[in-house]
Amino acid sequence: MRRLEIIAVEGLGEVKPGDPLGRLLVEACARQGLAPRDGDVLVVAQKIVSKSEGRAVDLHAVTPSAEALRLSAELDGKDPRLLELILGESRRIVAKGRSTIVVETHHGFVCANAGIDLSNVGVGRALLLPKDPDGSAQRIRDEVRRLTGKTVGVVITDTFGRPWRLGTTDVAIGVAGFGPLIDYRGGTDPYGYELKASVTAVADQIASAAELVMGKTSGVPAAFVRGLDLPPLEGSARDLIRPAEDDLFRGDR
Amino acid sequence: MRRLEIIAVEGLGEVKPGDPLGRLLVEACARQGLAPRDGDVLVVAQKIVSKSEGRAVDLHAVTPSAEALRLSAELDGKDPRLLELILGESRRIVAKGRSTIVVETHHGFVCANAGIDLSNVGVGRALLLPKDPDGSAQRIRDEVRRLTGKTVGVVITDTFGRPWRLGTTDVAIGVAGFGPLIDYRGGTDPYGYELKASVTAVADQIASAAELVMGKTSGVPAAFVRGLDLPPLEGSARDLIRPAEDDLFRGDR
Repeated sequence: MRRLEIIAVEGLGEVKPGDPLGRLLVEACARQGLAPRDGDVLVVAQKIVSKSEGRAVDLHAVTPSAEALRLSAELDGKDPRLLELILGESRRIVAKGRSTIVVETHHGFVCANAGIDLSNVGVGRALLLPKDPDGSAQRIRDEVRRLTGKTVGVVITDTFGRPWRLGTTDVAIGVAGFGPLIDYRGGTDPYGYELKASVTAVADQIASAAELVMGKTSGVPAAFVRGLDLPPLEGSARDLIRPAEDDLFRGDR
Repeated sequence: MRRLEIIAVEGLGEVKPGDPLGRLLVEACARQGLAPRDGDVLVVAQKIVSKSEGRAVDLHAVTPSAEALRLSAELDGKDPRLLELILGESRRIVAKGRSTIVVETHHGFVCANAGIDLSNVGVGRALLLPKDPDGSAQRIRDEVRRLTGKTVGVVITDTFGRPWRLGTTDVAIGVAGFGPLIDYRGGTDPYGYELKASVTAVADQIASAAELVMGKTSGVPAAFVRGLDLPPLEGSARDLIRPAEDDLFRGDR
C-alpha cells in the first residue's frame, strides 16, 4: 500500500541571524526522536531561513523613495517604507489592486509584496525572502548529510496567493536534491493516448502537503515528507518559473 | 509529534457510468485492509467521478459550431470538436495562447480547456468535469457513512495549471464535510502582530498532498489524508472561487 507520512519538526525556538539552521533542525529532530532517512524531503519555512540569514529589517531604518511615496498614495496609504523594501526586492510590478501590489522578485517569483512579511518577525519589522533560496536549501541539505549521513531533499517554502482562487497555498521557493517538476510527456495512458501536457510541480505539492502540519500559528517551522520515491537530482526552484513567452498572465504594464 | 498520513486507495478498476462510486471506494479500501476513520479526508480524482456520472463524450458525435471552428483557426488548428465542448462548459473565455484556451467554467473555476481531458478516457473520447462536484463529494460522503458508520470529509480533485509557475498542482473542485478555507484573520502572531490577510486554502493543499500518492499514471484514483483535525462543516468548493471584484487577473476581454 502506497503511503506517505508528513511529520512536523517542532521545538526549534526563535531563530536568530547567523544561526546554523541545518544543525538546529537536526537537533530539534533528535529531541523529538525523529531520525532523518535517505529519500526524505525536509521542508523548511522561509521565515526561519530568512531569519537565520539576517533578512529581517527594521522599518524605522527605511527611508521611502519618491516612487514608494507615489505608490503609497495610489495604494490606499500602504506603508511607504514597506513599498520601498518591495521595490528593492523586485524586477517589475505585475499588478496593483486597491492596497495590493503583485511583483516579480529578482528571483523571478510572482507574488504579493515581494514575499515580504510583517507577521512573525516582531512589530515594526519586516522579513525579506532569502537572496538565494536554492543555496539556502543546499546548505541545509549538506549540513543534514554531514551530521546524520543521510541524503535528503530540501524545500524552502513560502505562502503565496494566486489569481482566481481564494486562500493561499505554500509553494517551493528553494529546492535542493530533487527535480521540482515531474515530466510525464511522451508517456502514454492505459488507453495508448500520448500525454502531451503533463508536468507536475511536485515541489509545490510537497510544500502544500507540509503546510498541512506546519500551519500558520502552530510553531512548526519544518516538516519531513517521507515515502516519496524521487530520484536524487540537482534541482532548482528556478525550474518552476514559467518563461515569459509561455505566460498568458504576464501583466506587463 | 504532529503527523499526517496519506494513504493510496488502489485496485478500483475501470469505473463505468452509473457505478456507485462511494461503494466501490469502500470496497477497494476493504480489499487493501484500510478502514476509513472519523475525521479522515477522502480525496477522489475527478476522472472517476466524471466517469461514474456519465460525463465521457464521444468526440465523433460532436458537431462544432461556427464559433468553435473560428477558435480552432485561431488556436493553431486545435480540435474544433473539443473547442465546442469547452465552449459548452464555459461562462467566458479568460485568455488564449497559441493553442491554449483558459476559460471560466459554469462552476466558476478558471482553468485550461474547461477541465476537459482527452487522456485516460479512451482514444477519440473526452471527459467533462462533473456538473456539481460538491454534490458528487456529498454523495460519496453519505455513502461512506452509510456503509462504514464513519464521518469523513471528501475532496474531488482536478489538475490545474497556473500563471507564472510551471507544472500543475491538484486543486479541490468539490468539497463535502469541512470548510475549504482556514481563516486566521483577526488572530495575532506570537509578537502580537494582528494577522490581516491569512486565509489558507486547506482543501487545495489536501488535493496537492494526495496527488503525491495518486500520480498521473499510477492507477491510484483516490487517497485518504489522515491526521488532520478539521472541524466538521458543510463546506463547498465554491468558497474557493475568488470574487470578480477582488481579482486582479480576471482577463475580461
